[in-house]
Parts: sequence; structure tokens; C-alpha cells
Amino acid sequence: MGIEIERKFLVNGNAWKAAANSVLYRQGYLSTDKARTVRVRIAGDRAFMTIKGMGSGIARPEFEYEIPLEDAAAMLDDLCLKPLIEKHRYIVEYKGLRWEVDEFFGENRGLVVAEVELDSADQVVELPDWVGSEVTGDARYYNSSLIAHPFNQW
Amino acid sequence: MGIEIERKFLVNGNAWKAAANSVLYRQGYLSTDKARTVRVRIAGDRAFMTIKGMGSGIARPEFEYEIPLEDAAAMLDDLCLKPLIEKHRYIVEYKGLRWEVDEFFGENRGLVVAEVELDSADQVVELPDWVGSEVTGDARYYNSSLIAHPFNQW
Repeated sequence: MGIEIERKFLVNGNAWKAAANSVLYRQGYLSTDKARTVRVRIAGDRAFMTIKGMGSGIARPEFEYEIPLEDAAAMLDDLCLKPLIEKHRYIVEYKGLRWEVDEFFGENRGLVVAEVELDSADQVVELPDWVGSEVTGDARYYNSSLIAHPFNQW
Repeated sequence: MGIEIERKFLVNGNAWKAAANSVLYRQGYLSTDKARTVRVRIAGDRAFMTIKGMGSGIARPEFEYEIPLEDAAAMLDDLCLKPLIEKHRYIVEYKGLRWEVDEFFGENRGLVVAEVELDSADQVVELPDWVGSEVTGDARYYNSSLIAHPFNQW
């Protein structure tokens, strides 16, 4: 198990996109209960099952296991709650930190969020210009919430 | 992924116990939704995460992954729905088939069920003397149902 500490922000403009490569993510949920979220994700040509607990503040317990791609595809198609979440994930390095920028499509088209993973909850973070409002802990932006309440219905 | 085909029966008496070894099972659920059950199980000194779909008839799609014991212990303690299911599982060979007999304790004490896994849904099964009523497909006997409705409340 690991403890996940991360901050999440909305994204302005496209400046962040210039030097970034992206991977296609396709993911779904077997449980969206915030106390025991179970996610199935295909990221490029690899697949993972990830379990997250509630935690406290911005730190959440997280367990992740790589699983066979064909298992993930079958679970996404047949078992996971619909709609699935589809997005491009871009990795952007900035001042020594690794930002993950998610550009959603499908029913969440128009939503772009940036996440940075930290070593401690009080770590000082220098924000890139293209980072907007912080939405850490705002449940509407949880990927698991975007199934029941996709961005195009906000 | 595998397809699980199994039949389940109640058990009479203790004759089945004579030559059987047992392993202690401790398990809990991250999702008890019948269309996407997610189980965490410690079986002796190994641990597994198992996902089952709805399927049709007595065949259910099943995905199982071995996970680290300490992850399973943390998920059982902190994430899984309560109460946990605790039981002894006995393996009994009979006429070439392998029966799994589960003797529950805790809030399900008094319940003993036997399951046999089959190669096809129409396979002929010779039943041991100690096997009673068939309860295949009876949702009350799903381990995932025994959390919300334990046997001592029936």
C-alpha cells in the first residue's frame, strides 16, 4: 500500500501542451463508494486495478496492481459502471515536479485538470502559469464522480 | 478471465470432516453489487483480490489476482464493508470431484455449505451422502449477502 498525496488544479489555455506526450486512458469503476473506490484502467498498452480508501485531508490510501490487458478490457466492457471515463493524459515536467494533465473527452469534453503528486502534504509547490483554480478535495472532479455527473451536465 | 461454473449445497452432519484439512479464510468486500462484486480474501498465508460479474445461470465471469498479504490485511481492516466473513474451508475429494466445504463462524456461525466447481453447466455430479438441499443461485447464500444479512439473523 502507498499513501497518495496530491493537489489538483484546473488548467488555462494550451501552453502546457507544447512539449508534452500523451497516453490514451480508458477507465471505469467497479465501486465509486468514496470509502472504497475500485478503478480499472487501460493506460496505453498496460492495465491496472487501483483501490483507494477515504483517507484524511489530501492523503488517501492507495493500492495498485498491474493486470492483464484483456482482463481490463473485459471488465471495462462488461462489468464497470457506465459511462466509462476517457481522456488523454499528458506528462509535463515543471521546476522538478511532474504534472499530470488530463484532457477529458466523451461526456466530459471541455474539462482539463492538472495534478501534482507530492512527498508531504505541506510541500511548497511552484505553480506553472497555465495552472488555474485549485480543486483539491472537490468531489465533483473525482473521476469516480464524473460517471454519475459528467462535465457536459454541469 | 475465467468463467466460474459451480453448484452449491447445504451440508448435513459432520461425516465430511473426517479426512479433510482446513484453511482459515478471512474475507471482505469492496463492492457487493452483484454485477461487479470485489472481494479481498486472506486464505491461510496467501491473499487474493477477486472480481465477479453477474453472468447468466450458474456461470459467472471471474477475475482473480494474488496480492501482497499486508495489502489485503490493510484493506480488510480499513476499507472493506463490515462485518468481515470468517470461515474454515475444508477440501473434500469425492468420486473425482473436489468439494469445498465452508464452515462459517462469527455472525454466520451454524452455516455450512459445500460447493463443487464444474467444467460445464450440465455436468453430471454424484452427490456425497452428507450433501443436503441445493442452494445454487440463492442470493441469500452469497458470501457478499452474508454481510448485510448474516446467518444468525435469518
